[in-house]
Amino acid sequence: MAGSPVVAELDLGGSGKQVGRLRVPLSRDDSGWGTQLVPIVVLANGSGPTVLLTAGNHGDEYEGQVALLDLARSLRPEEVRGRVILLPAMHYPACAAGKRLSPIDGRDFNRCFPGDPFGSFAQVLAHYVDSALLPLCDMQMDLHSGGTGMDILPSAVGHALDDPDMMTRTLAMADAFGAPITLVLREVNAGPTLLASAERRGIVALSSELGGGGRLHPENLAITKRGARNVLRHAGVLEGAPEVGPYGPSRRMTVPDMGHYVFAPVDGIWEAADPLGTDVTAGAPAGRLHRTEDPGADPIPLTYAATGLLWCVRFAGRVKAGDPVAVIARDL
Amino acid sequence: MAGSPVVAELDLGGSGKQVGRLRVPLSRDDSGWGTQLVPIVVLANGSGPTVLLTAGNHGDEYEGQVALLDLARSLRPEEVRGRVILLPAMHYPACAAGKRLSPIDGRDFNRCFPGDPFGSFAQVLAHYVDSALLPLCDMQMDLHSGGTGMDILPSAVGHALDDPDMMTRTLAMADAFGAPITLVLREVNAGPTLLASAERRGIVALSSELGGGGRLHPENLAITKRGARNVLRHAGVLEGAPEVGPYGPSRRMTVPDMGHYVFAPVDGIWEAADPLGTDVTAGAPAGRLHRTEDPGADPIPLTYAATGLLWCVRFAGRVKAGDPVAVIARDL
Amino acid sequence: MAGSPVVAELDLGGSGKQVGRLRVPLSRDDSGWGTQLVPIVVLANGSGPTVLLTAGNHGDEYEGQVALLDLARSLRPEEVRGRVILLPAMHYPACAAGKRLSPIDGRDFNRCFPGDPFGSFAQVLAHYVDSALLPLCDMQMDLHSGGTGMDILPSAVGHALDDPDMMTRTLAMADAFGAPITLVLREVNAGPTLLASAERRGIVALSSELGGGGRLHPENLAITKRGARNVLRHAGVLEGAPEVGPYGPSRRMTVPDMGHYVFAPVDGIWEAADPLGTDVTAGAPAGRLHRTEDPGADPIPLTYAATGLLWCVRFAGRVKAGDPVAVIARDL
Amino acid sequence: MAGSPVVAELDLGGSGKQVGRLRVPLSRDDSGWGTQLVPIVVLANGSGPTVLLTAGNHGDEYEGQVALLDLARSLRPEEVRGRVILLPAMHYPACAAGKRLSPIDGRDFNRCFPGDPFGSFAQVLAHYVDSALLPLCDMQMDLHSGGTGMDILPSAVGHALDDPDMMTRTLAMADAFGAPITLVLREVNAGPTLLASAERRGIVALSSELGGGGRLHPENLAITKRGARNVLRHAGVLEGAPEVGPYGPSRRMTVPDMGHYVFAPVDGIWEAADPLGTDVTAGAPAGRLHRTEDPGADPIPLTYAATGLLWCVRFAGRVKAGDPVAVIARDL
Amino acid sequence: MAGSPVVAELDLGGSGKQVGRLRVPLSRDDSGWGTQLVPIVVLANGSGPTVLLTAGNHGDEYEGQVALLDLARSLRPEEVRGRVILLPAMHYPACAAGKRLSPIDGRDFNRCFPGDPFGSFAQVLAHYVDSALLPLCDMQMDLHSGGTGMDILPSAVGHALDDPDMMTRTLAMADAFGAPITLVLREVNAGPTLLASAERRGIVALSSELGGGGRLHPENLAITKRGARNVLRHAGVLEGAPEVGPYGPSRRMTVPDMGHYVFAPVDGIWEAADPLGTDVTAGAPAGRLHRTEDPGADPIPLTYAATGLLWCVRFAGRVKAGDPVAVIARDL
Amino acid sequence: MAGSPVVAELDLGGSGKQVGRLRVPLSRDDSGWGTQLVPIVVLANGSGPTVLLTAGNHGDEYEGQVALLDLARSLRPEEVRGRVILLPAMHYPACAAGKRLSPIDGRDFNRCFPGDPFGSFAQVLAHYVDSALLPLCDMQMDLHSGGTGMDILPSAVGHALDDPDMMTRTLAMADAFGAPITLVLREVNAGPTLLASAERRGIVALSSELGGGGRLHPENLAITKRGARNVLRHAGVLEGAPEVGPYGPSRRMTVPDMGHYVFAPVDGIWEAADPLGTDVTAGAPAGRLHRTEDPGADPIPLTYAATGLLWCVRFAGRVKAGDPVAVIARDL
Repeated sequence: MAGSPVVAELDLGGSGKQVGRLRVPLSRDDSGWGTQLVPIVVLANGSGPTVLLTAGNHGDEYEGQVALLDLARSLRPEEVRGRVILLPAMHYPACAAGKRLSPIDGRDFNRCFPGDPFGSFAQVLAHYVDSALLPLCDMQMDLHSGGTGMDILPSAVGHALDDPDMMTRTLAMADAFGAPITLVLREVNAGPTLLASAERRGIVALSSELGGGGRLHPENLAITKRGARNVLRHAGVLEGAPEVGPYGPSRRMTVPDMGHYVFAPVDGIWEAADPLGTDVTAGAPAGRLHRTEDPGADPIPLTYAATGLLWCVRFAGRVKAGDPVAVIARDL
Repeated sequence: MAGSPVVAELDLGGSGKQVGRLRVPLSRDDSGWGTQLVPIVVLANGSGPTVLLTAGNHGDEYEGQVALLDLARSLRPEEVRGRVILLPAMHYPACAAGKRLSPIDGRDFNRCFPGDPFGSFAQVLAHYVDSALLPLCDMQMDLHSGGTGMDILPSAVGHALDDPDMMTRTLAMADAFGAPITLVLREVNAGPTLLASAERRGIVALSSELGGGGRLHPENLAITKRGARNVLRHAGVLEGAPEVGPYGPSRRMTVPDMGHYVFAPVDGIWEAADPLGTDVTAGAPAGRLHRTEDPGADPIPLTYAATGLLWCVRFAGRVKAGDPVAVIARDL
Repeated sequence: MAGSPVVAELDLGGSGKQVGRLRVPLSRDDSGWGTQLVPIVVLANGSGPTVLLTAGNHGDEYEGQVALLDLARSLRPEEVRGRVILLPAMHYPACAAGKRLSPIDGRDFNRCFPGDPFGSFAQVLAHYVDSALLPLCDMQMDLHSGGTGMDILPSAVGHALDDPDMMTRTLAMADAFGAPITLVLREVNAGPTLLASAERRGIVALSSELGGGGRLHPENLAITKRGARNVLRHAGVLEGAPEVGPYGPSRRMTVPDMGHYVFAPVDGIWEAADPLGTDVTAGAPAGRLHRTEDPGADPIPLTYAATGLLWCVRFAGRVKAGDPVAVIARDL
Repeated sequence: MAGSPVVAELDLGGSGKQVGRLRVPLSRDDSGWGTQLVPIVVLANGSGPTVLLTAGNHGDEYEGQVALLDLARSLRPEEVRGRVILLPAMHYPACAAGKRLSPIDGRDFNRCFPGDPFGSFAQVLAHYVDSALLPLCDMQMDLHSGGTGMDILPSAVGHALDDPDMMTRTLAMADAFGAPITLVLREVNAGPTLLASAERRGIVALSSELGGGGRLHPENLAITKRGARNVLRHAGVLEGAPEVGPYGPSRRMTVPDMGHYVFAPVDGIWEAADPLGTDVTAGAPAGRLHRTEDPGADPIPLTYAATGLLWCVRFAGRVKAGDPVAVIARDL
Repeated sequence: MAGSPVVAELDLGGSGKQVGRLRVPLSRDDSGWGTQLVPIVVLANGSGPTVLLTAGNHGDEYEGQVALLDLARSLRPEEVRGRVILLPAMHYPACAAGKRLSPIDGRDFNRCFPGDPFGSFAQVLAHYVDSALLPLCDMQMDLHSGGTGMDILPSAVGHALDDPDMMTRTLAMADAFGAPITLVLREVNAGPTLLASAERRGIVALSSELGGGGRLHPENLAITKRGARNVLRHAGVLEGAPEVGPYGPSRRMTVPDMGHYVFAPVDGIWEAADPLGTDVTAGAPAGRLHRTEDPGADPIPLTYAATGLLWCVRFAGRVKAGDPVAVIARDL
Repeated sequence: MAGSPVVAELDLGGSGKQVGRLRVPLSRDDSGWGTQLVPIVVLANGSGPTVLLTAGNHGDEYEGQVALLDLARSLRPEEVRGRVILLPAMHYPACAAGKRLSPIDGRDFNRCFPGDPFGSFAQVLAHYVDSALLPLCDMQMDLHSGGTGMDILPSAVGHALDDPDMMTRTLAMADAFGAPITLVLREVNAGPTLLASAERRGIVALSSELGGGGRLHPENLAITKRGARNVLRHAGVLEGAPEVGPYGPSRRMTVPDMGHYVFAPVDGIWEAADPLGTDVTAGAPAGRLHRTEDPGADPIPLTYAATGLLWCVRFAGRVKAGDPVAVIARDL
């Protein structure tokens, strides 16, 4: 019972630019042998490394999707040395819906790795990416933003790795990507993410957070477009050195622990005290939570539990108990 | 079969500050005589006009909700001459969900007026507001923002009225509210809105658009808080003259017709050419629509069909065919 | 656009015992001309009044359904003088689901009268009952219990009517039914109920509450079976005098106003202080509301707001804000 | 509160061929001012009558949709005398889903006339067709098939009308359409259909049944294409006489009453005794209903209740209690 | 954690004819210990092989269900040598709904093998069939049709097996079944099907496709009834030689690869160029895809990519991007 | 991929009384990093055993939830020797809904053990309880009632264990709990329950059934409160001997096999012959099943298949085919 039921309608080993589709089985009541198409682009020329760039892991994160669509249209195969594989709208059903989660099976695609060839749709697709695409790759980057709920300072995101060589190569890749911030996380339970799957296969890999709020932000789009080409330059797939953005080299930071999060204790409307990117101090007011059910009640004040940079904030006004409303990063 | 089944758990004719609830019947499988509570605040003191301020007509529009919660807490009855009725989270089920539409009956509350005492939940509530609260009022303002989908320059919104006296009084109220923009619309089919219901009852009334994107924007919140108090001052319920904001008097504008809208012709990700508030020219590029299903296809360019101020823009990145992506306003 | 699309598959004017079905149009995706069958029984013999007995107005109220099924099987047409029409599972889709509300359109059938021949399923069926069955009737009784959510002392329920003759005839019918309690209510907004529809047509009519908790209670079933036959005796359709139950003549009571209700102010688990049928005093503890989200918080104590008989109590343990947890009745 | 909120994005009074869209407001959580597009084609040239041809009233009926798409592409405006209005996929959300009912509001579009400008989506669209398009028309034909559930001999369907002139003109139109069968029905409750709306406005109008089974049948498509052009020829909008099909002139039949239907009494799999188009006799076996829940039970035999032509049969194998499995027509 | 929670309410090892039920645990909100009943029939007499015949793997495939219900009623135990186990409506919740997928968990039952005793309903049932029934069997056949979406030439379907002896025995069984066509497939990912589960256990096994369109086709029903008895004769469970159908011996064919499929590239209505069973040529027109959203657009022509017999066609008119519209078979 | 993503917001190893929350990741469309809070209380003092008491495994079982909330509020840490861990509303989303199954993933929490750290919500939470809490424990009791569907005589429930020492210790714990009945079951497939998970880890453990009907029964609440404290006394965590209830020592019983269940063969309304707690005899009438679809049909009589005590009865009036309506226990 090995193998994936997914079929790539192009030649992953072919040369030139190919625009094709993954054909993922999806049985419907009115189409038992129906398939869901997932767009894929492969550019290959001569020998060189293989880089996989992905976006649309979550459907409501747009900077990566548009940057990779742009790259797919603008990149000429003769520019390439090696191979570029692009999945600009990877978890396609979620992308088509403009939602984080899939309308098909309700799954968060980035909690489905390494997948299951006979599981639900998201698991089948995750299994294909893990078992059929990752083994071809030397380098991988998965382009995220904060989605409908969160807004985040544009950042490359990597894991703190025990292998010093892999750590060095990961940081070098992040420097090349050149986001304003590089966040290095020690994620204990990252197992079900694409990033962790890539790491398990020994691939130099990054994730990212490039804005949020469920919108396409023009500045973050520019960072993402530049960063995607920078990764290809860094890998040697494109010629030339990575291009530095107007904000200079990437600032290395981390979110040390859960003590750097602020969570909403009850449902309400969140009124933040500070905008994204503020330097905040432990104990200072983080904002107020308004309980709409009782106009006579005072809003609940929350405070920061740590000192540092306000790296991520709640964007959508309405929160539920347990939602993070602020995440603070510190310099490494 | 007249009358509303809604019960107000306070005395609408009483004095002082009362924080109470509307009890709206909502039969559930596990509670046949269940009721949905809708918070209401009444402040009354001496003789004077009655002003009804409402927010949360749509659940994902937050500036009005927080401004009225703040007003409910901070207003002292002895400041008041007449009566203030506040519904800070009017369509409560939608507010609790943080959604435009009701999770109970899927209705857009602002398409339910004048309501139906034996219809679905939204219709029952609309009927109560129309038949029990509006008859008490001299002035009414319904505080909207653009919601999850749209971002809009902060504006009071009034209807172009045939009665010159009502038009004058409406514009005076809008001047007092003091949003950066006052938009005057000739809406042919506004019948099912709260604003139209108020007008049908001869009440001086306004709607508004005070930001959007599904977030609570601090500047727009400040405009809304000031505006809400300004309306009470203008009505004579609070003492003093309306306070002018830092942006000066309100600029009177209009959106003349459907030719001032730009609509997405197909599904895709919208990349706007200009930020909200730009002066744009007919024929200039409005942005590009990216079709994620085909990375080989060029994005679809759209152009502005009119010249004027970019008053409203699509906020959420993903659009469906038929969604407006831009609305242009012109000075009156 | 008059007339009902519902077809009765028996002869409403025929003699003898007929067991048939109402055929109510219900368009499905896979059966455009599909119909929903609603069981109906008609027994007629000679001349005499027509009595309509209904149950299953709400699907999770069982005493009436089983009592009328029993009556339908056991009654012989030669016992009858006049006509008996029985709808033992009137709102059939709700009955088949064992739910108060319809799984088809989510409607509470008893909020749908006088109905709409081209509305949703419940409205079409209500229109038929109102426009095709009620005009045939001299007397009507709709058998309810408290459903999943509530438990209620077995009672006939009638409206306080302005017409003294109708009031007298209604009370006589209730005395004949012979439940332990007869509750007389002044319902201002009862317009959309079957009872109100019957009254609008000048029919002597009753509703009832005969237990609850979503279960079939054997004692309440006995009361209901006896009461159903008593109504037929009282009408003269069956011979003999109504039979008095072991609890003696019916006690006439009322619930004067909303002040005789206790409502849950927030969500939680309701722990009642007293069992159904207790004599309670205004100000005494009614019970405690346990908030499961916070084990450190004390339960919220609620008190009775009126003195009288605990006529109706919350049955299901979990309540939502706005649910009634107790209703107190007083002797007339 | 008059008027429709629907906007036609073409000039209904213009000349030449216009391919446009109706823009129907449809508020979504992520697009409060969103609109649903409904394709419309208008061809006009010189003076002459206006004919409205519609298909996709139910989304899973395909002959009409493809015939009108073909007509829209192939018809040249210079061929036309007068005006042709085409709605090839009228209830567009149901058409896009390939379902009879709308996925938006669950409504059967042909039970929504004359509509409601402030009702649910289907009601708003029905109101526009009734109030904005029908008043322009001299003749109207709504192209149906049997849908997923039923298979039907290709037929024009008209109402038995009390006005002899209208009856004559309706039959003449049906003769011109030239389906193998013309069915004349006396429908008492046809009020909420498009056909009845057209008749209420004094328009010569027909419906039809042109196959079924949820498939596009090539022979029925040919009948439909020929018939659509024949109606235009009959009206004088196209030159020439209606073309007679290979099966000769249309046979006039009727379904006199409910006694010509066979209904499934319980759920099961329907095994028909005869194919569509068989001459059947009252009392003969119509088929057997297999109850899958009990393999030990014999299938339930059903018999025809009338003699005539098997005009309509159950297509989908699984039926529910109350579904028609056969309809018998008789010559007029 | 071994064992299945499913209980068979008959004695799988008993003699004679037993009609019983599998009792599969299915916890509901209102019945925590509820069970779903799945009908099962066992006929046993003397010594001999055990044959398992199954239908209703997908709920909208009817020939097999009715054939096995007929067999269950008509077979007498004294005719049998050995044992016959029949599951005429195996995935019962899907059968009761007349849908391919389960309304309980949305699963395609034939993608759930070998199942999971503690998974969702379909997984629990698949585990029972695999672990409790298959080990009893010498031969197994699972009766499929094309379902609502597809129409398929009646065929036995077997796998190309590496073990020549198993291949020979499988082909012999298919010859005995005697469908017009025997299709031999090399399915790489067939792991989660019942057929593959049977093969993994060393059982001679077949699947089939016996019509489609969501209807019960009388000719295909006759083929299926004959075939089911032929399998029992071939196994020696019934006496006599398999009966050859009027179309003669089965024609051995295959579908070599994905190049023999035609897929819809976008959503639309499919108009096929040829009926099922046509001999088609690579490059010839396969049909046209009509895009209802734009009546001005030409339909998209599709061509066959291979030469052979049109073995399977799209039945339902509406297709989604990625749906197969034609499958071509070639002689082995 | 080890470890749980759940974070306890208190120190499981700390002293004193801590009221905290488990933070369980739950990605929503509008909050990708959202968490669901599950209340937890830990009381620790000095050295001694650890006892885990849980309730709300199913959300509509209330005696345990209220008893543990009461214990959490009333227990003082200085009374404790060792540690008490309380989860009063363990499967919190189900508890908040007042439903057996989770509204998030539809899972029965007690069929999810030992869980999956990357599965659905219920699986993630079960994995945490199994892998993070159970290893800390010496004794565990999971407090159930019968839920909406069933009513059950208040009982401790333990498994018949092969290890005589564990069996002895389990029975001693049950004696201490002191419910009127102790039921000892040999459950073959109990693998996915919390009780089985505890046993797999060598913990002395019990489940229970303490009433039902979806209500909070005052007598059963008293039994549960006493029992919870008795378990702590028995473990030595609280001082003193277990307190014996007014009904004396617990009666040891068992339900030997499926032959002690009565199941509904079809859908209908269940009318029981006997109340809970009756001594019944094999072959005696158990009750009647009323089929509402046909008032002409006699109810189906069911009989008991075994002799013993009516330990569990169907509570909700409406049953579906396959639902148990009675369970009979026998003395051990």
